[in-house]
Amino acid sequence: LIVSASQARKIIPGESLKKLGEFGLIDLLRKRMKPSNPGVIMGIGDDAAVLRPQAGFDLVLTTDMLVEGRHFDFKTTRPRSLGAKTMAVNLSDCAAMGARPLSAVVSVGLPAKFPASKVKAFYDGLNACGKNFGVDIVGGDTVRSDAFVVNVALLGQVEKGRALTRSGAKVGDVILVTGMLGDSAAGLHSLRHPGKKAAVVRPLLEKKHLTPVPRVRAGRFLVEERLASSCIDVSDGLSSEVNHLAKESGVGAEVHEEALPLSTALLDYCEENRLSPLTFSLSGGEDYELLFTAPLSALGAILRRMPAETGCPVKPVGRIVPKKKGVRLIGARGVQRPLRSRGYDHFA
Amino acid sequence: LIVSASQARKIIPGESLKKLGEFGLIDLLRKRMKPSNPGVIMGIGDDAAVLRPQAGFDLVLTTDMLVEGRHFDFKTTRPRSLGAKTMAVNLSDCAAMGARPLSAVVSVGLPAKFPASKVKAFYDGLNACGKNFGVDIVGGDTVRSDAFVVNVALLGQVEKGRALTRSGAKVGDVILVTGMLGDSAAGLHSLRHPGKKAAVVRPLLEKKHLTPVPRVRAGRFLVEERLASSCIDVSDGLSSEVNHLAKESGVGAEVHEEALPLSTALLDYCEENRLSPLTFSLSGGEDYELLFTAPLSALGAILRRMPAETGCPVKPVGRIVPKKKGVRLIGARGVQRPLRSRGYDHFA
Repeated sequence: LIVSASQARKIIPGESLKKLGEFGLIDLLRKRMKPSNPGVIMGIGDDAAVLRPQAGFDLVLTTDMLVEGRHFDFKTTRPRSLGAKTMAVNLSDCAAMGARPLSAVVSVGLPAKFPASKVKAFYDGLNACGKNFGVDIVGGDTVRSDAFVVNVALLGQVEKGRALTRSGAKVGDVILVTGMLGDSAAGLHSLRHPGKKAAVVRPLLEKKHLTPVPRVRAGRFLVEERLASSCIDVSDGLSSEVNHLAKESGVGAEVHEEALPLSTALLDYCEENRLSPLTFSLSGGEDYELLFTAPLSALGAILRRMPAETGCPVKPVGRIVPKKKGVRLIGARGVQRPLRSRGYDHFA
Repeated sequence: LIVSASQARKIIPGESLKKLGEFGLIDLLRKRMKPSNPGVIMGIGDDAAVLRPQAGFDLVLTTDMLVEGRHFDFKTTRPRSLGAKTMAVNLSDCAAMGARPLSAVVSVGLPAKFPASKVKAFYDGLNACGKNFGVDIVGGDTVRSDAFVVNVALLGQVEKGRALTRSGAKVGDVILVTGMLGDSAAGLHSLRHPGKKAAVVRPLLEKKHLTPVPRVRAGRFLVEERLASSCIDVSDGLSSEVNHLAKESGVGAEVHEEALPLSTALLDYCEENRLSPLTFSLSGGEDYELLFTAPLSALGAILRRMPAETGCPVKPVGRIVPKKKGVRLIGARGVQRPLRSRGYDHFA
């Protein structure tokens, strides 16, 4: 355990947060989180961070809170991957706007008995995931709490007037999805049911749940190439997000069941355990993929260039239709039914 | 209970959050929180807010988390004033940078049984306090949690290169404080000890604790008039903040006990209950006043103009000395002792 700067205390193995103290923790974090963006005038250590915006860009600002026992559980999640995931879910919102993420502030509520080494691992995961996408942690708050709770607020930038919103979908547009759907939800199912079959694929699915990869590069590609008409990230399940997008754009939507991108890992897990891949892929949640729409004229460029230039698979799953047609799922042999929001409702 | 926009549901009296649902709550908030700043391109309702920065300004970004049972208690705090206070503590950080606050994102963790009407009151308090200082709530997150927990991240702007930091204090500078010190801590003491004497002044002190007024105008005045060399907000107690400021500026400091601004309410409460006003004023915390330094040449302008132009009292309490002299408290008859950080440590 190495802390390079001379002023920062080292963590004594087994030391509790109580012994390290709030200001000991802040000092330690400050030394570990040197900003790398030139726009950071003042990072951790003052009443607020000071950031210099670049001319010609709009800002995007998003925030997400994760609570122990609701969003994660230390039985199945290690502190480092929790840190990475907390950053990733915020990056995913930024990606859905097509923005380049820049700076984050992080608030953490911690039980006093929490081992300082685990707190450090958590912040290391957060910081490492941020750095992967060019994000500096520029401030935060540390408080005591009975349950572990973390909030990240993330600031990004996008070319002026070109943020991708939920409201730009037009009738005739193609609906596309990045990556695979349902893996994360199946991974959570697997973590919660250690006795399930399909031992080969379970670690893959669990990894998708524990360390999602935000589609920052895909979002940037869509903005830079001006290819998308609307975009949303899939955090609560595809059924929920398609409905949000249709509502905000004032349109209807058709999603083709057979077009949904399902991994062989998901299909194996579901087959061996007699589960429905459709449920995981439509209402599982935490995919952190991008759902976006594009005019038909852009489809060729997206399918040809996006996987190669962003490393991100992409698949058409349906199309935008007039509002009066509603939001529908087209099944095998053309059977249609309403695609209702079955996403996660925190209070239901 | 009036919700003007047609799409927003009304809260049924006695309705729980569980019945209203997460998306019902978001819809309700969205209709109530229309942005008023022209720089808000997209407020609540997308994956992230989109904000257009003004040329010539730096941004400041700060965040604070408040946890039920640690920072507040619903026995002594009503939801509306808790909302206002949550916004106020963030505004105070922004004020300490001399910045004009602009936009906030708010994450709330809520027990499912929490009455929807109280959630609404909480958000109303948050929104009303924000609006008082020109702040739009442009996004957030609502999640379920056993304890009530709220996080605000606040974005502001300050003239390029002119943010007030903790690191600019120079030897010979005067140390000044806005408002009164210790009232908030005495108010908390009073709330926790309902049997105490001094019935006349207790509501005044309790109000200072429950609804602090952030010194946004004072901070702006110091930046606009270029009068301060450094600034910090007094959230953890004066002793702690003087030490932070001295450390970051690489200087020492002398604080004169007899110069500390103490209200007659605090003095009455302490006298009647045999308590020490010095303890409250030096290490009480949650004052949310500004502690700042200024060259001697600026002192006249500050004392003459600041109360009239910002509505905020201000008082010199000491001076900056060379680092080797340390941080000291000068008592009656010139007796000196080290002024140690006795501020609130969340994990101690």
